[in-house]
Amino acid sequence: MRFRTISFLSDYGLVDEFVGVVKSVIRTIAPDVVVIDITHDIAPHDVRGGGLALARATPYLAPGVVIAIVDPGVGSARRAVAVEVGGGASVLVGPDNGVLAPAVALCGGATAAVVLDRPEYQLDTEGVGATFAGRDVFAPVAAHLCTGAPLGAVGTPVAPDSLTPALVPVARVEPDAIVAEVLWVDRFGNAQLNLDPDDVAAFGDDVRLRIRDDLRRASRVHTFADVRAGEVGLVTDSSGLVALCVDRGSAASELRLEPGDEVRLERDSATVDNAVPLSLRPRGGWR
Amino acid sequence: MRFRTISFLSDYGLVDEFVGVVKSVIRTIAPDVVVIDITHDIAPHDVRGGGLALARATPYLAPGVVIAIVDPGVGSARRAVAVEVGGGASVLVGPDNGVLAPAVALCGGATAAVVLDRPEYQLDTEGVGATFAGRDVFAPVAAHLCTGAPLGAVGTPVAPDSLTPALVPVARVEPDAIVAEVLWVDRFGNAQLNLDPDDVAAFGDDVRLRIRDDLRRASRVHTFADVRAGEVGLVTDSSGLVALCVDRGSAASELRLEPGDEVRLERDSATVDNAVPLSLRPRGGWR
Amino acid sequence: MRFRTISFLSDYGLVDEFVGVVKSVIRTIAPDVVVIDITHDIAPHDVRGGGLALARATPYLAPGVVIAIVDPGVGSARRAVAVEVGGGASVLVGPDNGVLAPAVALCGGATAAVVLDRPEYQLDTEGVGATFAGRDVFAPVAAHLCTGAPLGAVGTPVAPDSLTPALVPVARVEPDAIVAEVLWVDRFGNAQLNLDPDDVAAFGDDVRLRIRDDLRRASRVHTFADVRAGEVGLVTDSSGLVALCVDRGSAASELRLEPGDEVRLERDSATVDNAVPLSLRPRGGWR
Repeated sequence: MRFRTISFLSDYGLVDEFVGVVKSVIRTIAPDVVVIDITHDIAPHDVRGGGLALARATPYLAPGVVIAIVDPGVGSARRAVAVEVGGGASVLVGPDNGVLAPAVALCGGATAAVVLDRPEYQLDTEGVGATFAGRDVFAPVAAHLCTGAPLGAVGTPVAPDSLTPALVPVARVEPDAIVAEVLWVDRFGNAQLNLDPDDVAAFGDDVRLRIRDDLRRASRVHTFADVRAGEVGLVTDSSGLVALCVDRGSAASELRLEPGDEVRLERDSATVDNAVPLSLRPRGGWR
Repeated sequence: MRFRTISFLSDYGLVDEFVGVVKSVIRTIAPDVVVIDITHDIAPHDVRGGGLALARATPYLAPGVVIAIVDPGVGSARRAVAVEVGGGASVLVGPDNGVLAPAVALCGGATAAVVLDRPEYQLDTEGVGATFAGRDVFAPVAAHLCTGAPLGAVGTPVAPDSLTPALVPVARVEPDAIVAEVLWVDRFGNAQLNLDPDDVAAFGDDVRLRIRDDLRRASRVHTFADVRAGEVGLVTDSSGLVALCVDRGSAASELRLEPGDEVRLERDSATVDNAVPLSLRPRGGWR
Repeated sequence: MRFRTISFLSDYGLVDEFVGVVKSVIRTIAPDVVVIDITHDIAPHDVRGGGLALARATPYLAPGVVIAIVDPGVGSARRAVAVEVGGGASVLVGPDNGVLAPAVALCGGATAAVVLDRPEYQLDTEGVGATFAGRDVFAPVAAHLCTGAPLGAVGTPVAPDSLTPALVPVARVEPDAIVAEVLWVDRFGNAQLNLDPDDVAAFGDDVRLRIRDDLRRASRVHTFADVRAGEVGLVTDSSGLVALCVDRGSAASELRLEPGDEVRLERDSATVDNAVPLSLRPRGGWR
């Protein structure tokens, strides 16, 4: 056994049998591997959302193989790939459409990559369509990597810099404002922005939020419970980015926000001095 | 250990603790067994939908025990059964209401069956109602089968041909059309029909769809990405059946289709020569 | 290994990566532990609902560690605790806000408890916010307890009677009625009341239900299938409490009920003699 854990993210949902079938294929090839579900409720075909969720989880994943499937181009000319990081510490498997890219970048970049073109490591699909690569390509390849197949056995090497890169939005700096974007709305309605807490700190403890044509006051808080009733909090979230929150309610519902929406943070005077690069580097890792 | 894997499908949903309790019972009796969830979001009481989902997964399941629970008659006179297939290769456990039948048929039919009437292999339900057979009957029986209990120990033999059969609809052939039925709408909105690709091939690459009083053009495609904007594709899906699809959208939403709805495939001239039996035989199996 | 199983309940949902990250942290610290999901779809911040779901599952859980997280006060002054039951048979980990309390009571009460204040058994959260205690506190503590860390190592002892107690509603007895409350509505729409079957039995087989201003007839039944069309059944459910049900439909939808709603059970004459304490003691346990 080279790896004992497969971490698995997809947009398959849990209503159909897709996830169970992928796990059954893995179980049959590599019975001693444990599969850990990251999530399967990425919105259908939301490559960006899937890539960001994987990146948020990445610093905490057990070493091993990662399967990430958000694959609107399944069966078409898009490439299926396995990407090695850390010189072989882990391998990420999925379509080459950008869904793997933020996680690969967080791990220091790809040290090798292959296109999955070896049918002997995939399921025979005679008589069925090419619409379920999770079952027919990614699951068997991931399982064979766990049981010891070298990367070079499951596919043909490609240059790591030929992989589709991540397109992560960067907040835009204006004289008296930062124009940020909602990266993620979580189950509780917290709206994560592409902002470092340090960038907001330059504005002091209170800022104005401009969302479409609405203006709201927001205050920096340490925890959700610190947000005063009727106000919006700016909390440093569990990824180390700034999130909009309200206490025991949904900031996203209240402010009508969803991923991709623009949020302007404004102050009354003075200018913002520095650029505001989005940082998705590992934080809060292991002691 | 006779079996190391239990594959588990139900209509329990994941909102309540039902699935977790079933797994806890299994874990207590047979701690080394791995449970693989096929899905638990079968619509409540949808015996047909549960049976079809199990059948689609069946060719890929790890050998072992299968628990399938869609059980509107729980606690009533309906029989609880364990059905052996492949001369003991696997055992399916659930209510005898047809939910197991398509999977049993795919496995070549039952080689033995018992009615689960041995309380010593079930939980003591003194003081609680007979409403949760998954916890009290199916989970402990499945776990005991894994640890080595013979089929004949957990119940009284019944004739396999006394089991409730599957009622799978067969497409109807008319002079210039095939009248098919939607078997399944998946998370992405693809609508699987009870049609073999070969049957559609006889119509050429383009057909007319008649759904209620609406007419639409549809074309045979190899992948979802091949469907042209605004058109409907006829793809061979991952079960080897024909599914209606649109590119990066929901065919079911667009065509207002749900399982059980009728879809007519028409051509302008010529007749359909052959009957169109639904085939749910295993496809795309292991090399 | 002191424990091999972690049972895990939360209000994290399955849409985000929260649950997967918690499991990844456990997998990294204690790779041989199996995590069993009880449910993660407790309504956000519904401490009472989470505590009741955990209590319903408790008699069936495998011995080991239980993580229960419904934690609106995360990061605030609320205490994070580990609570030992059965003299060390199991340990429950979570916020000290009452979510653990019904389960602890069912297990005979706490035999020891600690406040989780030892950073060496938690993740380093430098650079990230204090909003994800599941990942940073509860998961690593639970994993370390499994691998052998004594309770006294992971936190500072506190008196068990200082833990936040459960507030479980008790049905109210009036001369000719019992005023009960809906504890839980399950996926199928069955509405569990805080009533023992014995209490209802004193009314005979038929009662009147008064819900807001509506009156309905209800009859005691053994199974869902025994309910006559158009009627409401009073079934002894799988927890041993009385639930309102209809056959193959949702009693909660039909009667417009949700947890916390009041339901009066009335009879025409005579009085109710006894108090009606809610009993959440283990029932139907192991032979």
